[in-house]
Amino acid sequence: MDTRRDFLQKLSLGIGATALTDLPASARELYSGPKADKQLRVALMGLGSYATRVAEAMKDCKMATLVGAVSGTPSKLETWKQKYNIPEKNTYNYETVGKIKDNPDIDIVYVTTPNSLHHKHVLQIAAAGKHVICEKPVADNAKQTREMIAACKKAGVKFYIGYRMHFEPHTRELIRMREAGELGKIMHVNNYMGFKSGDPNQWRLKKALAGGGAMMDVGIYALNGARYATGEEPIWVTAQETKTDPVKFKEVDETIMFQLGFPSGIMASCGTTYAFNNYERLYVVGEKGFVELSPAFGYGPIKGRTHLGPMNQPVVTHQTLQMDGIADIILNNKPDPNVTGEEGLKDMIVVDAVYESIRKGGAKIMLAGK
Amino acid sequence: MDTRRDFLQKLSLGIGATALTDLPASARELYSGPKADKQLRVALMGLGSYATRVAEAMKDCKMATLVGAVSGTPSKLETWKQKYNIPEKNTYNYETVGKIKDNPDIDIVYVTTPNSLHHKHVLQIAAAGKHVICEKPVADNAKQTREMIAACKKAGVKFYIGYRMHFEPHTRELIRMREAGELGKIMHVNNYMGFKSGDPNQWRLKKALAGGGAMMDVGIYALNGARYATGEEPIWVTAQETKTDPVKFKEVDETIMFQLGFPSGIMASCGTTYAFNNYERLYVVGEKGFVELSPAFGYGPIKGRTHLGPMNQPVVTHQTLQMDGIADIILNNKPDPNVTGEEGLKDMIVVDAVYESIRKGGAKIMLAGK
Repeated sequence: MDTRRDFLQKLSLGIGATALTDLPASARELYSGPKADKQLRVALMGLGSYATRVAEAMKDCKMATLVGAVSGTPSKLETWKQKYNIPEKNTYNYETVGKIKDNPDIDIVYVTTPNSLHHKHVLQIAAAGKHVICEKPVADNAKQTREMIAACKKAGVKFYIGYRMHFEPHTRELIRMREAGELGKIMHVNNYMGFKSGDPNQWRLKKALAGGGAMMDVGIYALNGARYATGEEPIWVTAQETKTDPVKFKEVDETIMFQLGFPSGIMASCGTTYAFNNYERLYVVGEKGFVELSPAFGYGPIKGRTHLGPMNQPVVTHQTLQMDGIADIILNNKPDPNVTGEEGLKDMIVVDAVYESIRKGGAKIMLAGK
Repeated sequence: MDTRRDFLQKLSLGIGATALTDLPASARELYSGPKADKQLRVALMGLGSYATRVAEAMKDCKMATLVGAVSGTPSKLETWKQKYNIPEKNTYNYETVGKIKDNPDIDIVYVTTPNSLHHKHVLQIAAAGKHVICEKPVADNAKQTREMIAACKKAGVKFYIGYRMHFEPHTRELIRMREAGELGKIMHVNNYMGFKSGDPNQWRLKKALAGGGAMMDVGIYALNGARYATGEEPIWVTAQETKTDPVKFKEVDETIMFQLGFPSGIMASCGTTYAFNNYERLYVVGEKGFVELSPAFGYGPIKGRTHLGPMNQPVVTHQTLQMDGIADIILNNKPDPNVTGEEGLKDMIVVDAVYESIRKGGAKIMLAGK
């Protein structure tokens, strides 16, 4: 049995977490201790509500420090300078952001702008020679994602996607159990993620900014989850769509079900929505057992159970673990838990196929060669 | 708050059950009390393991009595005469069963023979002028089901399907909540039912006897559940199939996912399998709340929770409630909770469409006019 200290060390090193028998505790309580000597110096680009969530979570980080900010709104930059102690010289707007190239005090930029701007912004950051984290969904489609990967490769910078679940202890335990054979041969997955979307005027409902609707925004959790729950890459996709509120969701998709076929012959049944709540779950069943996470993908706390009983993984703010995890990969050359741009591309290929299947009346889309 | 006596009376009358705060108790304990004056006199046809289950459950019935048996195996009839006190004059084989017409001591025959024999046997019983209960699935397809309904109509006998869940307290409470608007507008359904099939030589894996595989046998629970969870009839179907063990499941379907579209614009995601366990759940989510039953369709105990917390419906053997419920409908002219042959037909039309969609590579099958 690992001690809590061992466990926290593993967490901070981005290594598979071992189940603790302790009850979940708060992030601050669990995730305390001194800062590391080496720090990954992070700038956030696009200062919306998600950037604020990341900035708050980073207060607990041991290996990553918030040092810069990029925004088109001067008042936001002012607020952030005050609130997060960011020096003037580390702030940029979208016109000046190219100059970040000459700033030796910023290592990486986390792009949290609206989805459809990711492509342009990641290309800008890569051109400036900085590493990039791009919030999911990577881009509007696989084509853009390929261009982003190529640009980062050409610039010699690292490119990660904000797939925070890969750093979350219940999710890592599920992956560990699957890899260790504790579930036996995986037989089926049933994942879904959605919520009732609020403000009808938000950018997420505008195609030009969001790229798509629920599928792009949260369906991608069910999809990415099907990949890490099976450890396989899908070979075919079918999908069905409905809109119960075609006025509100005029520009983007509201509710989609999609199905995946895998090389081993198993299938996954997935769904996503912007039209109702109480719709968040990962369920993977194998010949020897199962894991159910519900909630499975939200900001937490994640709750889980297996054929053996409740999962009691620690509750640490996902973005804290994610930012420390990425720092650990970059600074200490640790293995990447499937959060590279290439992983994002694998998802975007399937997202493209989901929309293609819907356009073709639910037709089966083969993924080979896509 | 109803008293337990009120509750039991409602149960015995086939009326919607009200939640008890009592912990679940055993069937015998909960379902005690005197027999009713009037009894529905039942013969079982096809003395396999399911017939035994029904016979055992009927020991607790108040309004239904096991009085007869039909089997092609003389030794089984001997055993049943002894075990269930069945008089010689109420026993038949498949050659003599037509003579049941002249037996005034049998009111109804419950057909529990293999699926593909249901059509022939229901026609025989109808021709003998006796009411019929037919175990699900009704038949091999909708065409046979229509012939069975027509035959019963012509003979002036009642025709019910062994849809025991419609008498089960958690299921009835779900239907009551939905009808009372307590879930708000229904938005989505996610149902599945399956298990790992054992003996490779059983009749359920032979197409000539089973008609089909998991879809016919247990997928029908997910399907019927989608109909009672929404209160709507599907208008389209898509489906996907896989076989992880094509040798064992050479003749019948192993694992199928199917999706339903409903007139209100909502969709249901369903699945079924013969290849793995831990796959049994009904989940219906509305604008105001949800109901999850898991296990949802097996012989019990059914477990449920809603947005308000755990469901604590009583645990009574389903077949006891079902047989008393059908007795109550027939003897006391009580409303039928959607277990008629016409309900079976609605399911079989969808089952036909599931297989059609699979044959057509997952194509969307419109149900209008089917």
